[in-house]
Amino acid sequence: MSERLVVIGGDATGMSAASQARRLRTPEELEIVVFERGHFASYSACGIPYWVGGEVQDRDSLIARTPDEHRARDIDLRMRTEVLELDIEGRRVRSRDLESGAETWTGYDKLVIATGATPIRPPLAGIDAPGVHGVQTLDDGQALIDTLESSPGRRAVVVGAGYIGVEMAEAFIHRGYEVTLINRSAEPMATLDPDMGVLIQKAMEDMGIRVVCDAEVTAIHTDEAGRVRAVATADAEFAADVVVLGIGVRPATDLARAAGLPLGASGGLLTDLAMRVHGHENIWAGGDCVEVLDLVSGVQRHIPLGTHANKHGQIIGSGIGGEYATFPGVVGTAVSKVCDLEVARTGLREKDAAAVGLQFVTVIIESTSRSGYFPGAALMTVKMIAERRTGRLLGVQIVGREGAGKRIDIAAVALTARMTVEQMTALDLGYAPPFSPVWDPVLVAARKAVSAVRRLG
Amino acid sequence: MSERLVVIGGDATGMSAASQARRLRTPEELEIVVFERGHFASYSACGIPYWVGGEVQDRDSLIARTPDEHRARDIDLRMRTEVLELDIEGRRVRSRDLESGAETWTGYDKLVIATGATPIRPPLAGIDAPGVHGVQTLDDGQALIDTLESSPGRRAVVVGAGYIGVEMAEAFIHRGYEVTLINRSAEPMATLDPDMGVLIQKAMEDMGIRVVCDAEVTAIHTDEAGRVRAVATADAEFAADVVVLGIGVRPATDLARAAGLPLGASGGLLTDLAMRVHGHENIWAGGDCVEVLDLVSGVQRHIPLGTHANKHGQIIGSGIGGEYATFPGVVGTAVSKVCDLEVARTGLREKDAAAVGLQFVTVIIESTSRSGYFPGAALMTVKMIAERRTGRLLGVQIVGREGAGKRIDIAAVALTARMTVEQMTALDLGYAPPFSPVWDPVLVAARKAVSAVRRLG
Repeated sequence: MSERLVVIGGDATGMSAASQARRLRTPEELEIVVFERGHFASYSACGIPYWVGGEVQDRDSLIARTPDEHRARDIDLRMRTEVLELDIEGRRVRSRDLESGAETWTGYDKLVIATGATPIRPPLAGIDAPGVHGVQTLDDGQALIDTLESSPGRRAVVVGAGYIGVEMAEAFIHRGYEVTLINRSAEPMATLDPDMGVLIQKAMEDMGIRVVCDAEVTAIHTDEAGRVRAVATADAEFAADVVVLGIGVRPATDLARAAGLPLGASGGLLTDLAMRVHGHENIWAGGDCVEVLDLVSGVQRHIPLGTHANKHGQIIGSGIGGEYATFPGVVGTAVSKVCDLEVARTGLREKDAAAVGLQFVTVIIESTSRSGYFPGAALMTVKMIAERRTGRLLGVQIVGREGAGKRIDIAAVALTARMTVEQMTALDLGYAPPFSPVWDPVLVAARKAVSAVRRLG
Repeated sequence: MSERLVVIGGDATGMSAASQARRLRTPEELEIVVFERGHFASYSACGIPYWVGGEVQDRDSLIARTPDEHRARDIDLRMRTEVLELDIEGRRVRSRDLESGAETWTGYDKLVIATGATPIRPPLAGIDAPGVHGVQTLDDGQALIDTLESSPGRRAVVVGAGYIGVEMAEAFIHRGYEVTLINRSAEPMATLDPDMGVLIQKAMEDMGIRVVCDAEVTAIHTDEAGRVRAVATADAEFAADVVVLGIGVRPATDLARAAGLPLGASGGLLTDLAMRVHGHENIWAGGDCVEVLDLVSGVQRHIPLGTHANKHGQIIGSGIGGEYATFPGVVGTAVSKVCDLEVARTGLREKDAAAVGLQFVTVIIESTSRSGYFPGAALMTVKMIAERRTGRLLGVQIVGREGAGKRIDIAAVALTARMTVEQMTALDLGYAPPFSPVWDPVLVAARKAVSAVRRLG
């Protein structure tokens, strides 16, 4: 007797889950239907800024597998089909074909919710004007590129200085634009502590990006044709030929909410370790629409990242296919690049640690990516946060150039293993002059953190 | 009442120990005398190949601190002074000033043995001929550079394909030499398994390096002037204007052996966790002259690396200064570079695991340093060894291009934390297209290793 799996959302989590389930179950055992409302499935949303910036030439290179390739593997992928309603009691979903408008109910035995996240669009005048773009989906990316290719202006305003904001700032620099980055906080990259954020601001300004901080967008002004012309804040107005919104996203859980599924404080679905929605043994959820356990603080958080989405899909597909796999949680690692500046973080910021009642010490050190005498040795700043008394590592932030970003992985593994900074000082890390000073910058920070822990008592 | 600390050897371990002890103890509390037989102290021996290759222009940039700088900090550093005898009973050392020939006995309360390692020089005809060089010390490096600058020939033969051998091969390539690398094993870099060594051989050959494997040097032929002219193996003769020996080193423990101090199977001094020589509370040893605990296999090994030497010095100086610090051991991490090829390893090779009775699975995967669509994404091969049944990570080897080498740190920390490959699949590593595919190559290997562990049972 065949079962039917329905997957809502055909990007990282949804297609990974479908593919993994298909690997483990034949079409006779498990029918798989995937609904995707966009024009694309299985693509790298993370690659969009690089495609816009021209570093990635070919849009299709961002697509891991085409719809036809999925179909050839007996996955019934229905593109441009939006799920409008979820009937948990009746075990069925109502979908609409966005081309024809036809609506259908589809029953399921097992359900995967992989609806992703929705960019935040504040309700401002002009926010929907031509020339104002999000970059969440490949459809969004295509629309932005169409705008850039059809409009001669060379002034870009990016609203929001998170990962997407800074990556888009770089993309516009690559395209030869004048770039203004408008940021609500006092420093860019609020995923870092302010003292590290100022380093990023300085570096971005050195690249010629105008960084406007402590500024909230109040309106988007349009010209007679209704097209974007400027972005206004309380204090100023910034001329703009194109505007990109990178203000952040929220879990796309309207469907789930309407169906009465359990949501957390950030609005993300709540799942167990096997990524099953709490209280629903036949419903899984993963990716940008769920909350994940932060292993360092013990709280649930919404961390929309492709790397988690892919892991979730793998685990969900394994579970549906009858294998055992769990997602233990995250430590909050992220890395990004603005031109040659590399920015990375993992674990807790100072305010995260304080918010969960942890007392801590912080240290900041400066070192180099290679031995100081080796050509290309570049300065890097490492901030480390350790728990008072126990010395347990709580978080690391790194800002530097080539070779800085992926060093965060050392701290990510140490956090997962709940190491103390004292244990870290003895880590046997790779050393040779082209790769590191004899004391890796992370070890230098750990040594200083040990002293700070001892001093504070 | 003042004590006297005597340090034998003024390089990484010795000067780190002396400096750290000085930070913690005033000259009134602790007199510090360091004996160094060479012309240089506190230098980066690891940087010598890059200085020879011209990437590092200035010899003095390899010197962290000059003798006068040490002396200004009340460290009585006696250069060109060799310790000839160690009188444990009498707590004194006999030294000779290599310039004047004068000999002196110096008493000590505390002693640090930091005599380093001695390059292996097989007793071959011609081995001491002009044009045949080691590259262990800065004096060696200077002698080699003098040879290169005074001789017009452009054919270099490097004997030995370990770290120093491959780094010297690169140095000669940079200087425009024809390079032949003669290697006793079937593949270069015997610190890796043979299946990874072949990748290095292929890459080195593609760079124009002639790699001669399974070959033992039988003699070094000289010309009428007594200068090196060729290197002979059983089967062939390779014309050479300069020869570099990179056959390996052994702990320089003749002094310690003569004094009856405890040595391990590799001839290195045996110490406790605080780096005190077994049975001698007032004698410390560290760096290339000691054996270290391999945390993965539980056996003592001789691993001469600057990174351990510096850690040892720090720990010894802390202990002498009255603080508490220990060296828990190593996991066997090493990274090196030949032109744009990056080679890294940590933990056990297959033969190491077998030698200590471990049963294991091995997997090899190929992935890329960045997202496949991102410019500069370079292939990398990752080999992973995991214990049968438990799935505990035992070792990782990586061969690739930019971005490959320092990924070994992920595995180094995981080994230290005794993680299983299953735990590793959930690691929250930094991901963004310029830094990694969405599944980091190390995670791809871990996933494959999990399957292999399950298959074998």
